[in-house]
Amino acid sequence: MHQEYYHRLKRLKGVYLNYFLAGFVDGEGSFNVSFSRHKDLKSGWIINTKFQAYQHEKESDILEVLQDVLHAGRIRKKAGSNVLVLSIESRQTQIEKVIPFFQSYPLATKQKVFEQWKKIVLMLSRGEHLNQIGYKKIVEMAYYMNQQGKGRKWTKDDLNERISLM
Amino acid sequence: MHQEYYHRLKRLKGVYLNYFLAGFVDGEGSFNVSFSRHKDLKSGWIINTKFQAYQHEKESDILEVLQDVLHAGRIRKKAGSNVLVLSIESRQTQIEKVIPFFQSYPLATKQKVFEQWKKIVLMLSRGEHLNQIGYKKIVEMAYYMNQQGKGRKWTKDDLNERISLM
Repeated sequence: MHQEYYHRLKRLKGVYLNYFLAGFVDGEGSFNVSFSRHKDLKSGWIINTKFQAYQHEKESDILEVLQDVLHAGRIRKKAGSNVLVLSIESRQTQIEKVIPFFQSYPLATKQKVFEQWKKIVLMLSRGEHLNQIGYKKIVEMAYYMNQQGKGRKWTKDDLNERISLM
Repeated sequence: MHQEYYHRLKRLKGVYLNYFLAGFVDGEGSFNVSFSRHKDLKSGWIINTKFQAYQHEKESDILEVLQDVLHAGRIRKKAGSNVLVLSIESRQTQIEKVIPFFQSYPLATKQKVFEQWKKIVLMLSRGEHLNQIGYKKIVEMAYYMNQQGKGRKWTKDDLNERISLM
């Protein structure tokens, strides 16, 4: 049954398939920026970026198609659920695959979040988080993306507590 | 902000937009068949069919675009939540708008459910639920669609309790 979906989708012409996948990600995708404590770093925090797309395990083929089209990503089961997740955690892959794809096949409702995420990924890749101005800007943007930080574990004050030392 | 998404989406060329919307519905749409008791009917049950698509209220524009492209549907808030739902409940509209759209721009993971749903909608429109054979078939198909009836309020026995009288 899986193989059947997969082949039906892959028969769509490239561009059509790509628009289909963009529409799917507009509903079921996420662009995340997360912070975790790391006392050896100057800022005190590691910043990670992630692209993910979700689907119920009985309908996993679309994740395989997305993986195929992006030539990237790992699919695994979300712990304690029947949801599968395609994750792309490598910054280089985000820059080489994820960003160009959603520039060519734009999102609708997730477009603003994507644009913020893209800026953060590119700033991180240029090392801009290593100075006070860049780091502060990234914290602001990450909070702006995520409904002003609602649902975040750390406050902006937590993330900025060492900023004067940078 | 809403208007901005809307116009960006509408600028996509027709066919691309339609594939995008199919991808979105593949993630966020549902094709339902529901039964409610009605003692005046021969079978004892009213059968309703419904197409729905969901989105968070802060990202509602894609539902407006879908409504626009299908020339159909009503958008309302899901009670006690911050989710908006586009619903198409009229059988005629389902036959004239929903079915042709997803035949032209096929779904991937929801394709099988859509095919079953389409068959049931067409059977109902031909009055096939008014005889024992058709009614029984619809009950079977509705159960098959919905993970063998998991999550259904009524059992197949409930739905078939008056079938010998039809």
